[in-house]
Amino acid sequence: MTTRIVELRRGILKKNDELAAGLRERFTTAGVLVLNLVSSPGTGKTAFLERTLTELRARGASVAALVGDLETDNDARRLAASGAPVRQINTHGICHLDAEMITRHLEDWKDVSLIGLNLLFIENVGNLVCPSSYDLGERIRVALLSVTEGEDKPLKYPGLFNSADAAVITKIDLAKPCGFDRDQALRNINEIRPGIHVFETSAKTGAGMDEWINYLAWEAKLT
Amino acid sequence: MTTRIVELRRGILKKNDELAAGLRERFTTAGVLVLNLVSSPGTGKTAFLERTLTELRARGASVAALVGDLETDNDARRLAASGAPVRQINTHGICHLDAEMITRHLEDWKDVSLIGLNLLFIENVGNLVCPSSYDLGERIRVALLSVTEGEDKPLKYPGLFNSADAAVITKIDLAKPCGFDRDQALRNINEIRPGIHVFETSAKTGAGMDEWINYLAWEAKLT
Repeated sequence: MTTRIVELRRGILKKNDELAAGLRERFTTAGVLVLNLVSSPGTGKTAFLERTLTELRARGASVAALVGDLETDNDARRLAASGAPVRQINTHGICHLDAEMITRHLEDWKDVSLIGLNLLFIENVGNLVCPSSYDLGERIRVALLSVTEGEDKPLKYPGLFNSADAAVITKIDLAKPCGFDRDQALRNINEIRPGIHVFETSAKTGAGMDEWINYLAWEAKLT
Repeated sequence: MTTRIVELRRGILKKNDELAAGLRERFTTAGVLVLNLVSSPGTGKTAFLERTLTELRARGASVAALVGDLETDNDARRLAASGAPVRQINTHGICHLDAEMITRHLEDWKDVSLIGLNLLFIENVGNLVCPSSYDLGERIRVALLSVTEGEDKPLKYPGLFNSADAAVITKIDLAKPCGFDRDQALRNINEIRPGIHVFETSAKTGAGMDEWINYLAWEAKLT
């Protein structure tokens, strides 16, 4: 049975990679920068993304977001407060988004056309394992880690951190009460993915958001 | 391909259920209470379990732990500080433990015999989705949720909370800086799993640990 599973898994990933390659080509042609945000449940992806969308809109950027969850549209409703078009994808038990879900939800999204869009954010299902194998056609994969989770997560979930293009440490306003060891966390991130961009942020206080927004503006050629 | 995947998945889960039923029978015959601890990465399972093992040992109980992670033996080393026998299971990319892994690691565990053991804790891989489908032969499945993660996690991950026998809220020492809404969290847990035992704890300050340890002592017939 193991051989059949490995073969099927390879087949699924191959099909996903083909779809993702098609998406990437469409995104590049349309000139939209696409980011895939991955983290554990509760890292604060939604609060971070809401603030990101709001600040980018304030700079005149055209932004949108797709947000994945097993159930509920809580996150889409929270993100919509930014004023950006947001669409919820419910996976109903599946532990990650895949390229087919992205393709399907872009197809009939009446509020959004890729043409004229500067940045599209995809907030993945909260999970540090399964999303790392599924390319969504993004140009930048962002691994998020909160100060409440412990400094050793990059070592324990190397698949995600190794495949990421940027790392975001969230909730740094809680660093002190959590006894967060910043140096250790940075060492662990760099051990798994040497030289990765690391942003230290708080969506609550706004700390570190300027550096993050400047990075996005530069990558999306907004300036 | 979808039909083949569903069939294969059913086959895998059926095989797992059979193995788990065998494990459950062995655990019951040996008189050992087995718990399966499931949560998001960074909820504080290991700190909570370390304190649990230490306090149970102080009461004269015979305890042991199996701990699952994709990579590293960090958690086994942390838990070993309690003085209890601990064994690390590395899943190398698999996002949950299964009954076969438990069977195999019990077989050649020289430090531990089920006979004479009061409680065996299984700390699952940090993941709120995949572990919910895999019975490990446990009698009590514990869903853990930290105050840093947000009150809506039970609604967003109903599979786990619905299949749990007890819920543990961790890191309550951080409730205030996190702006944790206790009533909302309790309402959400009870919406998904009405009447479940809920323990509100801090492994750091020891708050709520007495109630939890008394519950375990009663369930394991220690008193």
